[in-house]
Amino acid sequence: MNQPKFPSFVVIEGLEGAGKSSAIERVNQWFARHFPDLERVNTREPGGTPLAEEIREIWKRPRQEAMAPLTELLMVYACRAQLVESVIKPAIAAGKVVIGDRHNLSSVAYQGGGRGLEQEVAGLSDITLGQFKPCLTLYLDIEPKLGLERARGRGELDRIELESLDFFERARRCYLDHAATDPDTVTIDASQTIEQVQADIEAALAKALL
Amino acid sequence: MNQPKFPSFVVIEGLEGAGKSSAIERVNQWFARHFPDLERVNTREPGGTPLAEEIREIWKRPRQEAMAPLTELLMVYACRAQLVESVIKPAIAAGKVVIGDRHNLSSVAYQGGGRGLEQEVAGLSDITLGQFKPCLTLYLDIEPKLGLERARGRGELDRIELESLDFFERARRCYLDHAATDPDTVTIDASQTIEQVQADIEAALAKALL
Repeated sequence: MNQPKFPSFVVIEGLEGAGKSSAIERVNQWFARHFPDLERVNTREPGGTPLAEEIREIWKRPRQEAMAPLTELLMVYACRAQLVESVIKPAIAAGKVVIGDRHNLSSVAYQGGGRGLEQEVAGLSDITLGQFKPCLTLYLDIEPKLGLERARGRGELDRIELESLDFFERARRCYLDHAATDPDTVTIDASQTIEQVQADIEAALAKALL
Repeated sequence: MNQPKFPSFVVIEGLEGAGKSSAIERVNQWFARHFPDLERVNTREPGGTPLAEEIREIWKRPRQEAMAPLTELLMVYACRAQLVESVIKPAIAAGKVVIGDRHNLSSVAYQGGGRGLEQEVAGLSDITLGQFKPCLTLYLDIEPKLGLERARGRGELDRIELESLDFFERARRCYLDHAATDPDTVTIDASQTIEQVQADIEAALAKALL
């Protein structure tokens, strides 16, 4: 019997406080259990390489100088181009699984929906990624108000977490719109108990086996 | 009699060692002499704002991690978007003159010609700048070999200066192609004596008065 083909690029998406970290842990555990010999590569965006992490640091830091929305967007894609070319694509080509903390859909939601740069996101996505996309995206859906309360409980806020509730409402709408039309994106209700969220994650992963 | 209308955004372009710094000084002196009350804003790219300078520093520094060509390009445009929105456009709107050490044409030449990313440069230029462009570009043309000898005489080389001669040959061809078709770009032979280069710069500025 052939071993089932696993989704080689799994991305976890969601607003601040949706529970991405626990979800990522669970995805890792699931792969470790079902594919014990498979090498897992964990990435985060923006960031994930030394260069991209340096850009991320500049990007996240609150500062006096107002960051132009387009600058914010271009910095994210600079990081993404670096990560995709130097980490994600080589890992997939080497037969590993890549588990991503955010990817392109975050830009669609935050900069596209949140900042109103839909056209620019589409153009940059096209230039930077072409047809490249995750095999499976797990979108952890949460009310922005609830998510932000959780995130704020974690301590000091970064530049994005300081945005208005309205910004996150627009981002959430984008996430939901995308999930409604993309067959490779699964929406998970992140307001459930952690056990139920984890069960939904495992079910989505199992369903994505080919 | 009305005062002649000056070109409000003048850019100096050219390969390493072409003499951009002296040219910029001369452009400043020319404006100071002919428009003594005019406020001059000097910019450099990539960079020119605290945020953009931080990105520039990351961008210039030689590093072990190979920078993906697209990452290099996206970082430049992140800087450019920031500079244009927060410095160049507001300065022009306030009636000042902006004197730029490099602008979009550098990307066309270095990343477009040098790295073969013509399509990507065109797309990013469109997203980031739309129809915005300099009133006058002074392109200091020099044989790459001669320019690099001059630049290398200045000390430690940055990531771009470490490129091959071939890279700079391709960039130069792009500069010349652009200058041949853009009516607002003047090519200045940078291998002449400094006096002759300066005379050519002043002639180009005088001719650009409306």
